[in-house]
Amino acid sequence: MNKNILSITSKYVLNPFEENDELIKTLITKNKKKIIKLDLGDPNVYFQTPKYIVNAYISALKNNKTTYSKPGGISELIDAVTKRYKLLYNIKLQNQDIITTSGASTALFFLNNALINKNDFAVLFNPHYPSYLFNLKMHQGKPIFGNYNEKNNWDIDIDNLQKILKIHKTNKTLKRIKYLLLTNPNNPTGTVLNKRILKQIVDISNEYDILLVSDEIYDEIIYNKASFTSIGELAKGIPHIILNGLSKNFSGTGFRIGFIIIPEQDKVSNQLKKKFRDYSLIEFSLNTPSQFAAAVALNNQKEHKKSIGTLIKKVEKRANLAFDLLNKNEFLDVVKPQGAFYIFPKFDYKKLKFKNDKEFTNLLLKEHGIQLKRGSIFGKQYHFRLVCLAPEELLQYSIDKINILLNKYKK
Amino acid sequence: MNKNILSITSKYVLNPFEENDELIKTLITKNKKKIIKLDLGDPNVYFQTPKYIVNAYISALKNNKTTYSKPGGISELIDAVTKRYKLLYNIKLQNQDIITTSGASTALFFLNNALINKNDFAVLFNPHYPSYLFNLKMHQGKPIFGNYNEKNNWDIDIDNLQKILKIHKTNKTLKRIKYLLLTNPNNPTGTVLNKRILKQIVDISNEYDILLVSDEIYDEIIYNKASFTSIGELAKGIPHIILNGLSKNFSGTGFRIGFIIIPEQDKVSNQLKKKFRDYSLIEFSLNTPSQFAAAVALNNQKEHKKSIGTLIKKVEKRANLAFDLLNKNEFLDVVKPQGAFYIFPKFDYKKLKFKNDKEFTNLLLKEHGIQLKRGSIFGKQYHFRLVCLAPEELLQYSIDKINILLNKYKK
Repeated sequence: MNKNILSITSKYVLNPFEENDELIKTLITKNKKKIIKLDLGDPNVYFQTPKYIVNAYISALKNNKTTYSKPGGISELIDAVTKRYKLLYNIKLQNQDIITTSGASTALFFLNNALINKNDFAVLFNPHYPSYLFNLKMHQGKPIFGNYNEKNNWDIDIDNLQKILKIHKTNKTLKRIKYLLLTNPNNPTGTVLNKRILKQIVDISNEYDILLVSDEIYDEIIYNKASFTSIGELAKGIPHIILNGLSKNFSGTGFRIGFIIIPEQDKVSNQLKKKFRDYSLIEFSLNTPSQFAAAVALNNQKEHKKSIGTLIKKVEKRANLAFDLLNKNEFLDVVKPQGAFYIFPKFDYKKLKFKNDKEFTNLLLKEHGIQLKRGSIFGKQYHFRLVCLAPEELLQYSIDKINILLNKYKK
Repeated sequence: MNKNILSITSKYVLNPFEENDELIKTLITKNKKKIIKLDLGDPNVYFQTPKYIVNAYISALKNNKTTYSKPGGISELIDAVTKRYKLLYNIKLQNQDIITTSGASTALFFLNNALINKNDFAVLFNPHYPSYLFNLKMHQGKPIFGNYNEKNNWDIDIDNLQKILKIHKTNKTLKRIKYLLLTNPNNPTGTVLNKRILKQIVDISNEYDILLVSDEIYDEIIYNKASFTSIGELAKGIPHIILNGLSKNFSGTGFRIGFIIIPEQDKVSNQLKKKFRDYSLIEFSLNTPSQFAAAVALNNQKEHKKSIGTLIKKVEKRANLAFDLLNKNEFLDVVKPQGAFYIFPKFDYKKLKFKNDKEFTNLLLKEHGIQLKRGSIFGKQYHFRLVCLAPEELLQYSIDKINILLNKYKK
């Protein structure tokens, strides 16, 4: 076959994650290394999906809930999402405000496909979860990067954002900014945006007429006395989208259940709801027994409170241990996490002999069998993301090794 | 929000399936009708997922197989797919030749996104499964419709295809034809392509340099002495793609497990494999316990033989009953199915007072509570698709009602 067969679009579909599968395979098979995985935001690696959810899943299977299900989601699950938002945030949703997808990943894809034309813009904030940029670039969209200010607890730099948007207003490119995407609680920094900042963001979105999207997939994993506000509580009367799902709050990463929530009833919101329902035909049906399990996961608040209570307590302890240990290291700057299960230290490259963060994470993997994610895949050089889900002794051991490696490579 | 927020692409994402949800809701809730569903190609509505597969699924859940899984699919499933193709067709696959997706629906999406630029072409055959055109149009591609010849047992009209391709050669638009897509066994006609025709199609694809894609999701559901040939057995040495999955052969529609299989190792094939692996990052992970269940479903040939043997025997009996009963009707022309579980009769509109097939299927639903799919959503007016999965008494009852309705509306 001689012709150039791939589409133009496909050239922009490029794996945004790590590329060291081969190295890891060699380490495991040839060097017989056991890898300590502190790289994956998957609660199920060190925790387990709560028993009541697994039992609901099994029960759905035993009751032959293995047919196709309705595009957009089974009504039991839609009802459960409605109840959750009423209970947690007093947000009143109607059934048509919710579209389920196979994980929030697919929701991000739908979002970008439905909104982004070539050369359109979206406001992201650095550091960012890699899939945001992956999905935007795939549609030949361009990021406008706002900043999470590391020196100010990774809070959003509002002045900087205002400045950027003013330039777009002057240049008349404002109408090509299709959405502004927040991550709250944040991956990779573990920080929680406060209500004051969120209000400012809502006002800015309103002033500049930009659709607000908030990825709130970690919204119940809050600790260290932080307090979480859903964008849905503040953005009344203006179109906005909330992304959520089963993966993190319910330790159901392998279930592949995500939600697109569009609470408002204005013209744009209704247009989006109808369109995402058409998009759900791409997947045709989600996994059916996992939807039934998800409905039970959300509905059984008593069991959920127990299991997420335990998770939060452990994550808090582990995140604080990681913070304390990393914070002692003279080569690292660390912000204390308050939500999700990540910590995102910066290393002082002027005092170190690493070329970049990739060299550091690769050496840590090769020399000590510890796997982290380098900061640059989140858009921040000289950082690394460590997942605070492993038991204390494993975190202690791993951070000791990080310290050893940093000392070995000091200038 | 004043701006036009939707992307150009999104305007082409339009539900290609039925639009009578509201009517059905009214019938069920207001008129207390019980709907007989003969519209859905879902073996799990009247059959059940085999016990050994459900048990494997439950066992995966009990063993905490609820983490994210590797994009592209878990190795146990990839190995199982490899074994299946060796066993059934003596096709030797390597691990990288297989990419799993959440159902063949998503595979169709990836296929079109990876290949189709605006105004590119794909060869489809009429009648066609609605998602083919949905995915092609969504990418602003244009269909070139070959014909399944109803008068010749729905066989492919090769001369017509040759003629069409010659015109494209003359017009120098051949290089914009990105693939030719077969459905074998066929949905909605229930026919199986014979080896002779398939060989001709392979030769044509080779001659005109068109990527061959074969949707073989019903490849084990063959009856009435028909014999099935996979395109992989014939297309040695030329790039081709086989689509398959758990849904039909394993009664696992709600599992959402599909396979993209690219058996060859030429430049184009390897390019596609690499690209689809990047595409799998859109979903990030498939449902994990269902992948483990799928691996067992494929590997346990002894149990599979038993359950699919029963399914085929029943489908054959039901399809033949439907054929015999429909064939007696003076207003209908019917081709006897040999595979999958569909029958696709044509009605003689000159003798009937229906405006179109939509009016017929709507009346059947309203007057008798029986749901079919109209032919026009498959690209063939004056037809309907009846799914031959319901028990005999239900088929008998339903076809009696079809006869009554046709008699009532004769001219």
